[in-house]
Amino acid sequence: MNDLVIRPATPQDIPAIVAMLAADSLGVGRESPDDLTPYYEAFERMAADPNQHPTVAVRDGRVVGTLQLSVIHGLSRRGATRTVIEAVRVHADERGNGLGSRLIEWAIAESRSLGANLVQLTSDASRADAHRFYERLGFTGSHVGFKLQL
Amino acid sequence: MNDLVIRPATPQDIPAIVAMLAADSLGVGRESPDDLTPYYEAFERMAADPNQHPTVAVRDGRVVGTLQLSVIHGLSRRGATRTVIEAVRVHADERGNGLGSRLIEWAIAESRSLGANLVQLTSDASRADAHRFYERLGFTGSHVGFKLQL
Repeated sequence: MNDLVIRPATPQDIPAIVAMLAADSLGVGRESPDDLTPYYEAFERMAADPNQHPTVAVRDGRVVGTLQLSVIHGLSRRGATRTVIEAVRVHADERGNGLGSRLIEWAIAESRSLGANLVQLTSDASRADAHRFYERLGFTGSHVGFKLQL
Repeated sequence: MNDLVIRPATPQDIPAIVAMLAADSLGVGRESPDDLTPYYEAFERMAADPNQHPTVAVRDGRVVGTLQLSVIHGLSRRGATRTVIEAVRVHADERGNGLGSRLIEWAIAESRSLGANLVQLTSDASRADAHRFYERLGFTGSHVGFKLQL
């Protein structure tokens, strides 16, 4: 359980990241692990934006977790900077050992060092376990998250 | 009711934007319309980021609405690009005349033209009227929005 490294994702990590995105009850229908082209293209768009931080957790050379941290500067709340956490996934082999908490705690610390005043994320209303998890880490489920597919 | 223009915000719009942010039941305690310095500083950070679109609605030369549209490129959902709408406000004089809908419809159309596949926003759980408003515009309140103040 040692040697966990949390670091910026690279293009070489994409197959492992996509496998984790797809190995999820909600993700399985909306990912294409057999066709990675759109993911490599998306990674290039992210790499061109200094406010996007695609991140992986690596143990013994193997990608075992991922999240994306995005920085949004804004005017509201006295010109507050917020971060948004998206696409949090932990490999099935690593569930229940605290890796999810390590990832989110890393994201909170990184948000502070990026100058953010607020960290936010949305979680599908059906993921009751995830909601308890975020509450334990100090988040408040104070908002309703609305989505519109285009 | 004519001559509504929706355009990128400029530094000259900041006093009017902040007045609207502060003239809100939740915003009143967290904004400082008497000290605009942090807002001008935040606007510079936003202006340096091509994925941030601070926006105003102007009628007869007067700023009557605002929102911020942010573009987040990501890996999940086959490398989908999403936009986030934040800080939506309509001047008290303009409530109930469809300006809020015009602003959100503008944000949806702009999201499409920016290549987004998904538009998302969070709304405080106490704002029941806002929730009905977003549902009428096609959004689904499928998520819980979690926030952590740093």
